[in-house]
Amino acid sequence: MGIETLCANIKKKNNPTVAGLDPELSYVPGYIREAAYHLCGKTLEGAAEALWQFNRSLIDALYDIVPAVKPQSAYYEMYGLPGLITMDKTIRYAKEKGMYVILDVKRGDIGKTAAAYAAAYIGETDIDGEKVRAFLPDGITVNPYLGTDGLVPFVSETANDKSIFVLVKTSNPSSGELQDLEAEGTPVYMHTAALVAKLAEEKVMPCGYSNVGCVVGATYPKEAETLRQMLPHSFFLVPGYGAQGGGAADVRPCFDQNGGGAIVNSSRGIMCAYKRENCAEEDFAGAARREALRMQKALSEVL
Amino acid sequence: MGIETLCANIKKKNNPTVAGLDPELSYVPGYIREAAYHLCGKTLEGAAEALWQFNRSLIDALYDIVPAVKPQSAYYEMYGLPGLITMDKTIRYAKEKGMYVILDVKRGDIGKTAAAYAAAYIGETDIDGEKVRAFLPDGITVNPYLGTDGLVPFVSETANDKSIFVLVKTSNPSSGELQDLEAEGTPVYMHTAALVAKLAEEKVMPCGYSNVGCVVGATYPKEAETLRQMLPHSFFLVPGYGAQGGGAADVRPCFDQNGGGAIVNSSRGIMCAYKRENCAEEDFAGAARREALRMQKALSEVL
Repeated sequence: MGIETLCANIKKKNNPTVAGLDPELSYVPGYIREAAYHLCGKTLEGAAEALWQFNRSLIDALYDIVPAVKPQSAYYEMYGLPGLITMDKTIRYAKEKGMYVILDVKRGDIGKTAAAYAAAYIGETDIDGEKVRAFLPDGITVNPYLGTDGLVPFVSETANDKSIFVLVKTSNPSSGELQDLEAEGTPVYMHTAALVAKLAEEKVMPCGYSNVGCVVGATYPKEAETLRQMLPHSFFLVPGYGAQGGGAADVRPCFDQNGGGAIVNSSRGIMCAYKRENCAEEDFAGAARREALRMQKALSEVL
Repeated sequence: MGIETLCANIKKKNNPTVAGLDPELSYVPGYIREAAYHLCGKTLEGAAEALWQFNRSLIDALYDIVPAVKPQSAYYEMYGLPGLITMDKTIRYAKEKGMYVILDVKRGDIGKTAAAYAAAYIGETDIDGEKVRAFLPDGITVNPYLGTDGLVPFVSETANDKSIFVLVKTSNPSSGELQDLEAEGTPVYMHTAALVAKLAEEKVMPCGYSNVGCVVGATYPKEAETLRQMLPHSFFLVPGYGAQGGGAADVRPCFDQNGGGAIVNSSRGIMCAYKRENCAEEDFAGAARREALRMQKALSEVL
């Protein structure tokens, strides 16, 4: 499923929010961790089991009000093969529940290798004539440092109704070190944006957006305003809301005039809502839902 | 094991070569594929089994003359969870045989997430007090697009005798689109190099190099010459030799005056030597060994 489906999901739920599933173990309530360790020990398997129980409950609590989830691959890779099994199960479960799944992998490599990554996540793997999907997300994030020949293989796969989000201006404090360097009169991130704009124009879907989107941090609203102009057909995936410091007003420039064209990620804000609410940890999923509703309200007030 | 071990391995084998294990199925001799499909079908499991048999034979044929291997994560991820099991087995097996293992993952993310990637590959994962290694490589490649706060968590883990290689100037044709942009009088890749140089200076090992190395493509010898000057303490991982067009003379500038400080990758050149030699496919590992010896000779002639 591509950007058309994501737009439809957002409209249906009236909520341009993606729930980030970047679960550190410390986010998981103690009783879930204990049960998992009881089953599998304090091992990679035990950790992966705890994360799976946590994710499943969060998805159950969110799927009717939040249109998409964004698992962050790093937090599964760090639990080794068992962690990756949990990632795969999480993707499948979220899709079963009708959520759009953006896997945050930030892959990028030379053309041939980029094609292998594209096959892994949004394409198909050819096993001597048998076509198999390795992982099942609907979209992924992509790193542009290697230039067009590293991007094109991902773009090719979007033709099969999948989406990509290319890092343009990231949300972290030192993103500017390379991305803001002034090159030939414009910062590097705008050069990246120009590459993305060109690729996005190739095929615009009926919703007005292309399957070639980009990542623009909520923490840089001024830059977002410029980028929104430069990239009229790219859907914005917006990290940095909440825990990283971005507020509802900060993300407004990422949206188009009609309040579309962007989806805002909240990870810790939603996953750890029970800690901030100081409610019973057994109510973590309820707290996540309440936070998602607060976020929906906050966003709808500025859109 | 860090850069000190890599330097010692190279010296011992008198061969600054790393064998890239980026195995596409089409590289694997037909009889190995057939046997694997017979066992597991034309499935991800079958493909992963074929790749494992291929890798194991290659390692057996190379470990006494080649100091290091570089599995490219994309080519395992594309075969899903079974592919990642093969990657894990390959890393373990190469280490058992005394090879230095650089996992080519090109990860890069914001600080917190970069720390999760660093834990996954060169650090330890903390499971409520139990420290576990998720994957076992000695070093990894890292993407710098997010700037210092995305690099520092990887650098921190190098303190535990692991190495990183930051993408500075990649080997692909369009690497220049962002990397060569002139910013404040110098190209972006030199800005990246300056970040790396600063991080590398923090801890130089007795061999004269730091655990913070970089990736410089064999296809850009002029740039390599400048970078060798700028990065006196960074070990160079050099892709692009052979199939991508770089020759022995092209990689010379990546080395220091004493012929140290760099390791040259060959992937297809070694893995597919049996196709170019046109020998029996059962002799694929022998052909790989012969190619590795030819490469050793070619490199030693220019060093």
